[in-house]
Amino acid sequence: MSDLTFDLIKEDGWARLGTLLTAHGAIDTPAFMPVGTAATVKAMTPEAVRDTGAQIILANTYHLMLRPTAERIHRFGGLHEFMNWPGPILTDSGGYQVMSLSELRKIEEDGVTFRSHLDGSQHKLTPERAIQIQHLLDADITMVLDECTPFPATEEEADSSMRLSMRWAQRCREAFRKRPGYGLFGIVQGGVYGELRAESAKMLTDIGFDGYAVGGLAVGEGRDLMLKTLDVTVPHLPKDRPRYLMGVGKPEDLVGAVRRGIDMFDCVLPTRSGRTDQAFTRRGTLNMRNARHKDDPRPMDPQCTCYACANYSRGYIHHLVMAKEILAAMLLTWHNLHYYQELMSAMRDAIAEGALDAFTALFAAEQASGDLDPI
Amino acid sequence: MSDLTFDLIKEDGWARLGTLLTAHGAIDTPAFMPVGTAATVKAMTPEAVRDTGAQIILANTYHLMLRPTAERIHRFGGLHEFMNWPGPILTDSGGYQVMSLSELRKIEEDGVTFRSHLDGSQHKLTPERAIQIQHLLDADITMVLDECTPFPATEEEADSSMRLSMRWAQRCREAFRKRPGYGLFGIVQGGVYGELRAESAKMLTDIGFDGYAVGGLAVGEGRDLMLKTLDVTVPHLPKDRPRYLMGVGKPEDLVGAVRRGIDMFDCVLPTRSGRTDQAFTRRGTLNMRNARHKDDPRPMDPQCTCYACANYSRGYIHHLVMAKEILAAMLLTWHNLHYYQELMSAMRDAIAEGALDAFTALFAAEQASGDLDPI
Repeated sequence: MSDLTFDLIKEDGWARLGTLLTAHGAIDTPAFMPVGTAATVKAMTPEAVRDTGAQIILANTYHLMLRPTAERIHRFGGLHEFMNWPGPILTDSGGYQVMSLSELRKIEEDGVTFRSHLDGSQHKLTPERAIQIQHLLDADITMVLDECTPFPATEEEADSSMRLSMRWAQRCREAFRKRPGYGLFGIVQGGVYGELRAESAKMLTDIGFDGYAVGGLAVGEGRDLMLKTLDVTVPHLPKDRPRYLMGVGKPEDLVGAVRRGIDMFDCVLPTRSGRTDQAFTRRGTLNMRNARHKDDPRPMDPQCTCYACANYSRGYIHHLVMAKEILAAMLLTWHNLHYYQELMSAMRDAIAEGALDAFTALFAAEQASGDLDPI
Repeated sequence: MSDLTFDLIKEDGWARLGTLLTAHGAIDTPAFMPVGTAATVKAMTPEAVRDTGAQIILANTYHLMLRPTAERIHRFGGLHEFMNWPGPILTDSGGYQVMSLSELRKIEEDGVTFRSHLDGSQHKLTPERAIQIQHLLDADITMVLDECTPFPATEEEADSSMRLSMRWAQRCREAFRKRPGYGLFGIVQGGVYGELRAESAKMLTDIGFDGYAVGGLAVGEGRDLMLKTLDVTVPHLPKDRPRYLMGVGKPEDLVGAVRRGIDMFDCVLPTRSGRTDQAFTRRGTLNMRNARHKDDPRPMDPQCTCYACANYSRGYIHHLVMAKEILAAMLLTWHNLHYYQELMSAMRDAIAEGALDAFTALFAAEQASGDLDPI
C-alpha cells in the first residue's frame, strides 16, 4: 500500500489522465513541474508560479545541501515554509548535479564524494544521506540516488552503471521513512539499451516504489532515441503508479512522452528561456530581442491568457529585453510557465475526451505554422 | 487657474497635508514617487508597485527618448498604456541625465546637444523638445528643462546657470499645451545661495506653474546644506501649489524636507538598494548579505506588513542574496518601496493630527535604536 494515492482516471492509447495526492495537495497528471533550483523558481514569486497553473514544483537537493544546507532548511520548518510554497514539492536526489556541476567527484559502491562548485568544500552523498536530506527538506516526493548514465555509453558501461543504481535504489527504499502523503520514486536506468531498461524496471518494481522515473534521458541522445527508449521502458512499469520523465523537455517532447504513457515532467527550459529572451507560443518559439517586435502592439501569443500576454505588448517586452530590465525575465518566465501548464491542461482535456490524436495533430500544425504575420 | 487641482487640507508648522488631482488619479501628499527609469520600476510589476501604496511614479525622459523613443511610446498609446501603469506619471525633463550620463554634451542658449550613452548617436534637447517629448509620453506632470547647477559652484556660476534655467522655464511654459488634469512644474535653481534661490522662486512664480520643484540639491552638498537651502527657498513658493524636492532621498531626508514644506519626492534609493541587498526598516538599514541573518526566522521588519515581510524570513532572503537570485531583488525592492510609502503615510497621519513633532522624535529614536537583538 503506497503512501501516495494515485488515481488513474482515464486512458487514451498509452496516455493517462490521473490524480496524485500528496501531503501538500493534489496534482493533476500529466503534470509539468517548474524547477525551483535554489528554493525559488527564478524570477517568480510562488504566487505567480501558482497563477500559471503549477501544482507542484521541483527543487534541487545538490544546490540546497550546499547552500543554505538541508539542516538549516529543516530548522526553518522545511522547504515549503522556507520558500513560501505551500503546495507539493519533489526533490531530486542530487546525483545528477554532482556529476554535471561538482569537481573531483569519485563514485564508489558506498556513494559519491565530490567538491562543491561554490567553495571547493568536500561532501559525500550516499543513498542514505540523499534520503535523509530529502526528509530534512520535507519533500512530498523523494527521488532515489542514482548514477545518471552518460551518453554515449557502451552496453557494458550502461549495464554496470544501472546495476549500481539498482543497489542504491534498494538502500534508498530501506532508508526512506514512510509517512502518509509522502512517497519515494525509483529511477529506471540502462542507457538506450532496451533490455537493460526492462531489467531495471523489473528490479525497481520488485523493490516497490510509489512512482517510477525514467532517468538518463535528455542527455544528448536526441529526440528519436529518447522516445524509442520510452517505447521500450514504459511497458515494463506498473500501470497503477505515476511515471516521471526526468529533465524533459521541449513542448513537442512533452506531447511525445505523454503519448507514451508519461505522467510527470520537469525541465528548466521554460524558466531558463525566460531569462534568455525566448517565449514559447502555440506558433513556435519567439526571440523577443528580434527587432520585428519593436513596434508590435500585440501580445506574444494572442490566445494566451497569462499575466504577461494580458497586460503587455511585444513592443514593450522587446524594449525591456533591450534595456536588460529584470521585468523582462519576470514576464517571459511567467508566460513560458503558463504556456507549459496550458499545454499540460490541454493534453489532460484531450485524454479525458479520448482525443489525444486529434490534439497532437493540431499541436504539430500550430507549431509548424510559424509566428503571426507582421502587422 | 491650474489644470492640476491641489487641495491643501491641513498644515502642521511648515508641513502640509494635501491632495493633488491628475488626469490619471489622485495623489495624497506628502508623496513619494518610485522611479521607473526605463518604463519599469526595476524588479517590480506595476501591480506590486501599487500594492506598496504608491499612487504616482516617475519616468526618465532621457532614457525613454533614446530607447524606445518618445514617438514609439506615443504610438503605443503613451506611457501608461505602454508600461501598464494606469495611475499618474511624472516625467523629468531629461536635463539631469544629459549632464550625468551622456557624452560630449554642449549647452547653448537654445538647448543642449549630446551623444547617447547607448550608441553615441547625437541628440538635441531644447525646452520645446523636452515639452514635446513629455507630451508624447503622456506625462500627467511635465517638468521644465533646466540646467542642474553642479556642486560646488561659485555664486557667479550658480547665478548664470539659474538665469539660463529661468529663460528655459519661460519657453517651456509657452510650449506646454494645457489639458485638464495635466500640469507643468517649474524648477527652482540657484545652488546653495539663498538670494539666488529666492530670485528664482520669484521668477517662476511670476511665470506661473502648476507646481514648483526644488532642483540642484542632493548633488553632493550634504544633508545640512540641503535642508538650509530648503529653509531659504520654500518660503518664496506659493502656498497653494505642490512643492517637489527632486532626487531626494534617505528616509531622514524625507522627514526633514516634509517638515520644511515639501510635498513630493522621488529617489532611486529604495529600488537601487533593493538590488544591492539593503533593506530599510524602522530600526535603520539592514545589509541582507550579513551572515547574522542566516538562521533568523524573523521578517526583516516585524512591524512591516509588506509582501516580503508577511511571507519570508531574514534567513530566506539572506539565502536568496547569497545565491544571487532575482527574487532577492524583487522582495527587497518591494519591501523598500513599501517602507517609503508607509513612512509617507505615517507623516500624512501625523500632519492630520498636528503631531509631526512627536512623529519626528519617534522616527529618530527608532532609527537610532539599531537592529533587533539576535535571537
